[in-house]
Amino acid sequence: MNPVAIIKKKRDGHELTAEEIRFFVAGLVSGEFADYQAAALCMAVFFQGMTPAETAELTLAMAESGQMVDLSTIDGIKVDKHSTGGVADTTTLVLAPLVAAAGARVAKMSGRGLGHTGGTIDKLEAIPGFRTELAQEEFLACVNSVGLSVIGQSQDLAPADKILYALRDVTGTVESIPLIASSIMSKKIAAGAEGIVLDVKVGKGAFMKDLALAKELAETMVEIGKSVGRQTVACLTDMNQPLGKAIGNSLEVYEAIRVLKGQGPERLCQVCLTLGAQMLYLASGRTTDPDTAYHVLEAKLNSGEALETFARWIHAQGGPADLVERPEAYLPLAPEVVVTATSGGYITDIDPLSLGLVALELGAGRKRKGEPIDHGVGVALEVGVGQLVAPGDLLARIYARTAAQAKQAVAQVRQAITIEPVPPTASSLIYQILA
Amino acid sequence: MNPVAIIKKKRDGHELTAEEIRFFVAGLVSGEFADYQAAALCMAVFFQGMTPAETAELTLAMAESGQMVDLSTIDGIKVDKHSTGGVADTTTLVLAPLVAAAGARVAKMSGRGLGHTGGTIDKLEAIPGFRTELAQEEFLACVNSVGLSVIGQSQDLAPADKILYALRDVTGTVESIPLIASSIMSKKIAAGAEGIVLDVKVGKGAFMKDLALAKELAETMVEIGKSVGRQTVACLTDMNQPLGKAIGNSLEVYEAIRVLKGQGPERLCQVCLTLGAQMLYLASGRTTDPDTAYHVLEAKLNSGEALETFARWIHAQGGPADLVERPEAYLPLAPEVVVTATSGGYITDIDPLSLGLVALELGAGRKRKGEPIDHGVGVALEVGVGQLVAPGDLLARIYARTAAQAKQAVAQVRQAITIEPVPPTASSLIYQILA
Repeated sequence: MNPVAIIKKKRDGHELTAEEIRFFVAGLVSGEFADYQAAALCMAVFFQGMTPAETAELTLAMAESGQMVDLSTIDGIKVDKHSTGGVADTTTLVLAPLVAAAGARVAKMSGRGLGHTGGTIDKLEAIPGFRTELAQEEFLACVNSVGLSVIGQSQDLAPADKILYALRDVTGTVESIPLIASSIMSKKIAAGAEGIVLDVKVGKGAFMKDLALAKELAETMVEIGKSVGRQTVACLTDMNQPLGKAIGNSLEVYEAIRVLKGQGPERLCQVCLTLGAQMLYLASGRTTDPDTAYHVLEAKLNSGEALETFARWIHAQGGPADLVERPEAYLPLAPEVVVTATSGGYITDIDPLSLGLVALELGAGRKRKGEPIDHGVGVALEVGVGQLVAPGDLLARIYARTAAQAKQAVAQVRQAITIEPVPPTASSLIYQILA
Repeated sequence: MNPVAIIKKKRDGHELTAEEIRFFVAGLVSGEFADYQAAALCMAVFFQGMTPAETAELTLAMAESGQMVDLSTIDGIKVDKHSTGGVADTTTLVLAPLVAAAGARVAKMSGRGLGHTGGTIDKLEAIPGFRTELAQEEFLACVNSVGLSVIGQSQDLAPADKILYALRDVTGTVESIPLIASSIMSKKIAAGAEGIVLDVKVGKGAFMKDLALAKELAETMVEIGKSVGRQTVACLTDMNQPLGKAIGNSLEVYEAIRVLKGQGPERLCQVCLTLGAQMLYLASGRTTDPDTAYHVLEAKLNSGEALETFARWIHAQGGPADLVERPEAYLPLAPEVVVTATSGGYITDIDPLSLGLVALELGAGRKRKGEPIDHGVGVALEVGVGQLVAPGDLLARIYARTAAQAKQAVAQVRQAITIEPVPPTASSLIYQILA
């Protein structure tokens, strides 16, 4: 068994054995298998694909290349959720306390934002005192007492995936379904949850622009979950427009609180309930059906129990006890400027990618790993697709550090919002749920 | 322009521009373009191919990445020859003095052997005193006085190709027609000859096992030559059996001398005359047609002028003046053992790859670059395909350093020679000539 023979075998369209995949992953981590060989293999996989068995083996090998989180001291079926990344998508901040309020246990590791999409850990760090690095016992204790905990990914979580992902990023081999699916699932599996709900975003603002490809990715991940004994459900949801209205770290914490108070944007709220219902369904061992679970979660939202769980969780991880009562005391924003409509008509399009890039330029995100970010900047939409506006109406608020940045952002946000005389056709939100 | 964009462009089947190819080659040599990116690009080329324009540009860029040899102080059209590598193929040692005797000028850089195929420089170094490293002036002076000179490739000849080839070798990306063709042609173009004759070997003992693929390679190289203004002819010749009868460095020098004395194996002699006729045709500016040139060369062989040119050449580069009279005084061989037939019948097959590997194991070649080799070992066939033998008849002589090596080689050589009751069908030698 040698790396060149493995590369040629894949290049020529043959199925790699479990041993060959394990050898490849081990060699990748030890450095025995050179990075140029890994790059050649990734490109061969791009062209030749991988069978379900190969993909599952690669996933497990990457998961087992580092720490496998042990959640056995938490009672019940632990559930996790992963999003492929969107804009104005603060789902986790709503969803985790929501399902915890309904009795599910969420012991979650989240990532940071990169490029135009945000990251849960960055948003949580906008909250003064909130600690995203907890010792394992503290993390488990928080889940046992509050019902949930969210921390940053440990450095030792699927290190093989970290190496491979960094390499794929600079070798034009990101866009491969089996490589994307195994990358996502390796981290989820290593993180320990028995039930995994995947939010696969589709559209202009998502990594997957195309529904058919997104569906293929979702199916591949559900298949991996099945192969390795983790209950997995995937939801295909729309990202042709921003999911919520807030883009930027502090802004998204505000928005999460509003949703939990029953005042949030409709589409964000619906996605939270839909994903949450699937999490509850898995947490019940598939005994509570998703429709019933959906109603349970609506009740938890309306009763204020979800908001209360959120508040307890934030406090348990070091944040202020009264964040939900006085968010403005803790989440300062950069100076505000407004964007108004220059013409009247229906809002037919709000381009999520453009808005994500505006927030990135304002300092809300990072272009390269490790860069510092600014929690107080971003874009808050005041309108949604389908809405009728008159000239001069408020479209959005921009929070920027300098006048020059604000000026550029105003022009870009205005351009990202299309106003036309005829109303748009209704847009989808949940395309499909695969279990 | 950035490496990842170039990789993705090729990956997605688009044609790279001349600028992008130049950027890639420059980045490869400077180290700006990481080796894992080059590996990914090579794998993308493996799957997507290259257009003739891309291939020609890559060839020129690699040629121009180092020294471009200037042969302008030599009169007339300088001709060169390249073989893709065979077994018992000592063509250059015969061909270069043969065409020089007929007036062509051969200023040639040759390589060393790797794996089961031999290298001209290794064979020449079996001759005591022969110097394969000459200063440029000495090299040109030798061509001007004797009509030819053969030296090792300078370190600075097409350095981009050296880097890329080494990388392809360990990333499973060798087997790509545009990459093979540009690799070969870049070195030939940098070496300065105006006329290039390519011997593309086809068959079990060749790099190209398949005639259609070999033809594609030959056409690609002829096309490159045309694009960059170098007259190029390619001959597709058979390598399903050893070309001559000697495998091993000193043994092949003996064989070259025998061919030049008119006592050499028929097939080797024919290939030398065929390739030589094409070289003479190009050296004449395509005024002497190849058939006429063939007869001219036959006359030079029969008159002893080719042998005399060989002797003067060897002496001019530092070898003994009387090598052709007393080769046994200068080319000592390892102890000899014989291989005899265990059954009678017709020789239907002699496997060149197996015999090449036997010689390699005896020490005639190297498995890795830079390894020392033993000039005195090898295999000398005493029979050819189609010959009728009786049990106990001599099949081959083996020259080995140890009894254990000899014993193993006897068994392997016996296995490489197939004896059957029915004579084989006639085998081809020259498949096609492409100009």
